[in-house]
Amino acid sequence: GVAPAVHAQAAIRWRLASSFPKSLDTIYGYAEVFSKAVKAMTGGKFEISVHAGGELMPPFGVVDGVQQGTVELAHTVPYYFYGKNPAFALGSAVPFGFNARQMNAWMMHGNGRKLMNEFYGAYNIISFPGGNTGAQMGGWYRKEIKSPADFKGMKMRLGGGLIGEVMQKLGAVPQSIPGGEIYQALEKGTLDAAEWVGPYDDQKLGFHKVAPYYYYPGWWEGGPEISLYINQKAFDSLSADNKAIVEAAAGMAHGDMLAKYDALNPTALKQLLAAQAKVLRFSPAVLDASFKASMEVFAENDAKSPEWKKIYADMRTFQRDQILWFRVAEGHYDNFMAVQKI
Amino acid sequence: GVAPAVHAQAAIRWRLASSFPKSLDTIYGYAEVFSKAVKAMTGGKFEISVHAGGELMPPFGVVDGVQQGTVELAHTVPYYFYGKNPAFALGSAVPFGFNARQMNAWMMHGNGRKLMNEFYGAYNIISFPGGNTGAQMGGWYRKEIKSPADFKGMKMRLGGGLIGEVMQKLGAVPQSIPGGEIYQALEKGTLDAAEWVGPYDDQKLGFHKVAPYYYYPGWWEGGPEISLYINQKAFDSLSADNKAIVEAAAGMAHGDMLAKYDALNPTALKQLLAAQAKVLRFSPAVLDASFKASMEVFAENDAKSPEWKKIYADMRTFQRDQILWFRVAEGHYDNFMAVQKI
Repeated sequence: GVAPAVHAQAAIRWRLASSFPKSLDTIYGYAEVFSKAVKAMTGGKFEISVHAGGELMPPFGVVDGVQQGTVELAHTVPYYFYGKNPAFALGSAVPFGFNARQMNAWMMHGNGRKLMNEFYGAYNIISFPGGNTGAQMGGWYRKEIKSPADFKGMKMRLGGGLIGEVMQKLGAVPQSIPGGEIYQALEKGTLDAAEWVGPYDDQKLGFHKVAPYYYYPGWWEGGPEISLYINQKAFDSLSADNKAIVEAAAGMAHGDMLAKYDALNPTALKQLLAAQAKVLRFSPAVLDASFKASMEVFAENDAKSPEWKKIYADMRTFQRDQILWFRVAEGHYDNFMAVQKI
Repeated sequence: GVAPAVHAQAAIRWRLASSFPKSLDTIYGYAEVFSKAVKAMTGGKFEISVHAGGELMPPFGVVDGVQQGTVELAHTVPYYFYGKNPAFALGSAVPFGFNARQMNAWMMHGNGRKLMNEFYGAYNIISFPGGNTGAQMGGWYRKEIKSPADFKGMKMRLGGGLIGEVMQKLGAVPQSIPGGEIYQALEKGTLDAAEWVGPYDDQKLGFHKVAPYYYYPGWWEGGPEISLYINQKAFDSLSADNKAIVEAAAGMAHGDMLAKYDALNPTALKQLLAAQAKVLRFSPAVLDASFKASMEVFAENDAKSPEWKKIYADMRTFQRDQILWFRVAEGHYDNFMAVQKI
């Protein structure tokens, strides 16, 4: 027989700073799924407390928090930190980038995670997959968007610096407004439009009552990945088994979030339709103009940030092949099923 | 300070019977990713040896093996066991069923896993997610398939009993042939067509040289889930932390397989195209006839198996909502990207 192993291990207590409020239960929930799994796998010897955005530090202060070791972990969207370096955006989503599955393929079996972690090295950060929302919606508008010209002068709440730059090229005036204040601003008309996530999250904020035109697709977030950031020194200090436990918990919670969004979005969409939201497709002219504006911003980033340039080139090369494949079996299967009576 | 916990645990040695050969490295590889993670997370105290199809028992004997406790785990495709009860197929894929993400949504946040595990109770099995291939291809054909009439009398190698019944309604003659013998049968003409998986797996077997017409989509496998089956008593015997470790390892390996397929399929597809494979879309008439034949078989199963009837109804209800949502943001995003020059 094999002798039982005797194993002594000090308790570990870590803190995770989320960028999200608890009310975004799907996206915030990742951190809880993750930390519960770590606790269960270690019989309670490794506990990670989860703190909502603003509780320990501002929602957009979490990269500094992990970098300086104020907290061991953060759960956030990399493109929030576009201002530090455009390359952050490539860890989550860029306009006309990957869908969720393609992002996973690049991150897990392409160069994605490797290149992002090299980049994050300068911030003392190692990243793990932190969930994905799937393709988002294109936001709520007080008026119809019939042509690219309708973006001109439009005051729009946007989720990150990259889409802000693209929207500026289209003539819009990006606004940075906390989630809790968007509804009132749309109602008063100090804001003309706002993008948030998708039906499940958007419904809770009631935007359809004040800006009923709900456009798709959210071409700036075709499959945004959320990241789990861990302070490199803290991660290095873990035993090999705890490292593996963190990795597996992150991997499981990552898939769980997308499945949860996919399960919850349809009911919310139906309820929004019943509540008179006008769910409309961006016209080809609007998408084409948005695509062109995005490509201009990408070229500017190539000139500004060598880290962006290197990772972006790898991402687009990988994406070309992904699209080739997805438009064959996957795309035709989905398109056939989209019109069947089942 | 917190006192260090002292922890004694006997070593656990389990055996996993895979239904797959090692040459299918992507699908077989799930079991290795899973078992390596379990070993790493337990510091080597919980080891699962992985055995290729046929090594311990026939590839299709693994349900009996887990049921009887000959092995603790199996990694297999539930639809292989359609002959035991049609309901098995619902744990993997039915024609015109979910795509991979929709299957995850149903399994993880709909009733899918719960209903399947209730059903598996009669076999002393509890199931965990065992990977997904994504939408498969529709197989290799010696001649073009121009209309549903071309299926008549066609001897075709098929992967499971359900698609066999559907193909019989279309007039085809399903053949059960081991993977290693398909090439020769196609070359000799004793077989007219064969379906396998997708570009990455198919390319290795060289079918394009003897049956060059490669159709899509594989409407009988829009997003087949592979299952990890565990003997219920063996699972119940685990400590709470080892249960959580098994669950997280399965969850991580599950997402890893799909990402690996998505990363590998594009290059294989390009190489197959370069090697003169004729990659063609099934015509709408062929898909419509296949859809109709499938619905007939589903109705027959409703009459034959109460377990099928209950789970199938839940699955289709969930799928209706999934399709409603997927044809909005996700579908339009993918379709726009499919024709962009990036």
